[in-house]
Amino acid sequence: MAFDTLIHNATILTCSPTFDIIPGGWIGIAGDRILALGPGPGQAGRPAARLVIDARGGIVMPGLVNTHTHLPMTLLRGLADDLPLGVWLNEYIFPAERTVITPESVRWGTLLACAEMALAGTTTCGDGYFYEDAAAEAANDFGLRAVLGQGVIDFPAPGVSGAEQSLTAAGEFARRWLHRTNTIVPSVFCHSPYTCSADTLCRAKRLCDDLGLLFQIHVAETQGEFDHTRSIHGVSPIAYLERLGLLDERTLLVHCVRVDDEDIALIARRNAKVSHNPESNMKLAAGVAPVPQMLAAGITVGLGTDGCASNNDLDLFQTMDLTAKLHKLVRRDPTVLPAEAVIRMATIDGARALGLEREIGSLAPGKQADLILIDTRKPHLTPIYHPASAVVYAATGADVDTLMVAGRLLVQNRRLLTVDLNQILSHAEAIASPGTEPMRRKRVNPHATR
Amino acid sequence: MAFDTLIHNATILTCSPTFDIIPGGWIGIAGDRILALGPGPGQAGRPAARLVIDARGGIVMPGLVNTHTHLPMTLLRGLADDLPLGVWLNEYIFPAERTVITPESVRWGTLLACAEMALAGTTTCGDGYFYEDAAAEAANDFGLRAVLGQGVIDFPAPGVSGAEQSLTAAGEFARRWLHRTNTIVPSVFCHSPYTCSADTLCRAKRLCDDLGLLFQIHVAETQGEFDHTRSIHGVSPIAYLERLGLLDERTLLVHCVRVDDEDIALIARRNAKVSHNPESNMKLAAGVAPVPQMLAAGITVGLGTDGCASNNDLDLFQTMDLTAKLHKLVRRDPTVLPAEAVIRMATIDGARALGLEREIGSLAPGKQADLILIDTRKPHLTPIYHPASAVVYAATGADVDTLMVAGRLLVQNRRLLTVDLNQILSHAEAIASPGTEPMRRKRVNPHATR
Repeated sequence: MAFDTLIHNATILTCSPTFDIIPGGWIGIAGDRILALGPGPGQAGRPAARLVIDARGGIVMPGLVNTHTHLPMTLLRGLADDLPLGVWLNEYIFPAERTVITPESVRWGTLLACAEMALAGTTTCGDGYFYEDAAAEAANDFGLRAVLGQGVIDFPAPGVSGAEQSLTAAGEFARRWLHRTNTIVPSVFCHSPYTCSADTLCRAKRLCDDLGLLFQIHVAETQGEFDHTRSIHGVSPIAYLERLGLLDERTLLVHCVRVDDEDIALIARRNAKVSHNPESNMKLAAGVAPVPQMLAAGITVGLGTDGCASNNDLDLFQTMDLTAKLHKLVRRDPTVLPAEAVIRMATIDGARALGLEREIGSLAPGKQADLILIDTRKPHLTPIYHPASAVVYAATGADVDTLMVAGRLLVQNRRLLTVDLNQILSHAEAIASPGTEPMRRKRVNPHATR
Repeated sequence: MAFDTLIHNATILTCSPTFDIIPGGWIGIAGDRILALGPGPGQAGRPAARLVIDARGGIVMPGLVNTHTHLPMTLLRGLADDLPLGVWLNEYIFPAERTVITPESVRWGTLLACAEMALAGTTTCGDGYFYEDAAAEAANDFGLRAVLGQGVIDFPAPGVSGAEQSLTAAGEFARRWLHRTNTIVPSVFCHSPYTCSADTLCRAKRLCDDLGLLFQIHVAETQGEFDHTRSIHGVSPIAYLERLGLLDERTLLVHCVRVDDEDIALIARRNAKVSHNPESNMKLAAGVAPVPQMLAAGITVGLGTDGCASNNDLDLFQTMDLTAKLHKLVRRDPTVLPAEAVIRMATIDGARALGLEREIGSLAPGKQADLILIDTRKPHLTPIYHPASAVVYAATGADVDTLMVAGRLLVQNRRLLTVDLNQILSHAEAIASPGTEPMRRKRVNPHATR
């Protein structure tokens, strides 16, 4: 059988269970799937291919999986930083969302996010926001793989007035997109246990169970939330979700910063998944999720960037680097979270967190052809003693040369192939500019001068 | 007077004491200095210029100042990660240095480091290593600005047999390079208070005082060092240096992770400078320097990457991002170290730490023309509400389009203008390859599979 695409002359990081690395390897793709891969530098003796890509000694690995984003919030990137949480949220983010977020802006914000992610090596994202139909259309047009959850919340938010309407919208969105395309997977995103009532949470989870969807929720992000949940419900946020019957293998718990040993045991027992968002948790001063302990308990932990209002980018390479270093610091042990373990979190475990591990997250015959090529002919990637080390500790998203989702090239030679980048940038700038001018002027920074 | 170079259509981050930002600005350069700068987008009405650079709306700011590196250790980048400190140092780094480090390899390692730094926006570095003549020649050939200290240590190290020989070599190196060029500044680098005797330290400092040089030293990096110094000398590492009379305004204290309130007061009183290297300190699990407390005490703190064996790159943009986020986390306060404060650390305060604040670190008429142009026409830098936020929280070194040192363009359109990059990469690979093959095979990673 012929290949549609053959990539050769590559160091292949398969991210297989044994973390096989194939130096000087090739990979053959037919349709949307990987047909075969193996060692050997050249084309000789391989089936013919329509397109042959010479990796020139670069690293080919699975596309990265970003398990938590709010895609349209790219439009609020850097609007407000370095502020107390309440000021940031109530005086900047919420007013900006009321001004800026419409189905039209969600489309452009999502395209902007897809452009950023694709140019930084991410092939799949988990998202939760509002006007999710517009996000799904945009991600589908772009060609990125996405697990998208329409937001459920008891309060007014972009396009929804409260619990009833957001639950209805979530159900309609999910049914519209279920099995509609190969790359867009509907989901439900409950904002949090403190912005959704027990009734709302259980109805959202029921919707997920009925349709076989991933249930995403922010939980245990801060000590404040932990204390609040304890004071209202008498238990920790995780134990509260357990009591409501919300923890199972199709539940993705985002943040899990403030979890104790009992919480970890609960998550492990239910095989619920965790999304770790260290950059957001640091920037908002929330704390550090006990990832080594969660991994030791057998929990699947994926990596997330969170939205661009609290990071402020979608570069998972930087998140990998930070994750590896942060937990060494916290545990005062330089052997914690070695490079290979962090790559796993950003690929196969991220796929598992989103329920897609049979399709993506590693490079093997039969799997979806979601992959990236890292150009290593650069000073900061020279020399390379171990490709995993280069990927985690030295590469950034800007080193991604080529990116493919479901066998379709979205990036080649760092150019986006499916969209007009200038059009996206211009629309994003236009949306950001007038709507937020009043807030822009508000910025007061007591530390800016001294 | 005519300009040699005019850069226009730029958002200029001056890094002046009042942190002035000039939207739609221009900057005129003559010889090695900035002649004038101001608002106004076009060329009209400006003096003629030999070279006109259209910044196309990008950000122009002072080149970044990396206050601590070991340049030739780029050759050991990623040789060994995720290992206990003793194993890392004794089984990997020291043997590799014995095998790999020669004057010839120091030259290529330094060129590799300069290429990496220039392509990531760094115009000045502080360095401490061995065979420093070769490093100075290489940095000078490249055109980067560097404060270079020949290493002083009581034990055998590359090219030196111990205290006497390393002190002699340090003096000879310093005298050879004093006032020899505009961009290479000699210094002395004492490895640490636990690898140099009191006698060695004092003689090295005397050498610095005699010649007006910066005295660089690793100090208070770990709790282990703190305990060791207390057990031997009865005081903290900083108090020990004070007792020896080594703390003054021309002393650069590298790391300062394990310092207490009394140490901070001592550093402030003597106006000694601090180099903060958070990525290295995290990766080696050393801890976090109390930077907000040091800034509050009025201490000048610059940023450093440390060497590539413990980071593993020289990208100060990533260090800025991490610094801003890390101290918010440690202090559990999202207002700590706002973007502007971190940019100051990476520019003017870095310059001050190296004793060069009158020449570099901010953009003003009369200062050396050491500057960078950041290309902001990219998804992850769109939109921009505040340029300082974009620089710290979203940009990486790969966004640097153009870089100039002393009025001389070293990078334009991300191409290196003064060296042959392929030659450097090939030499670095050749040096790394045979010498370290035995060590490469040694890598054992217990966490790689599970």
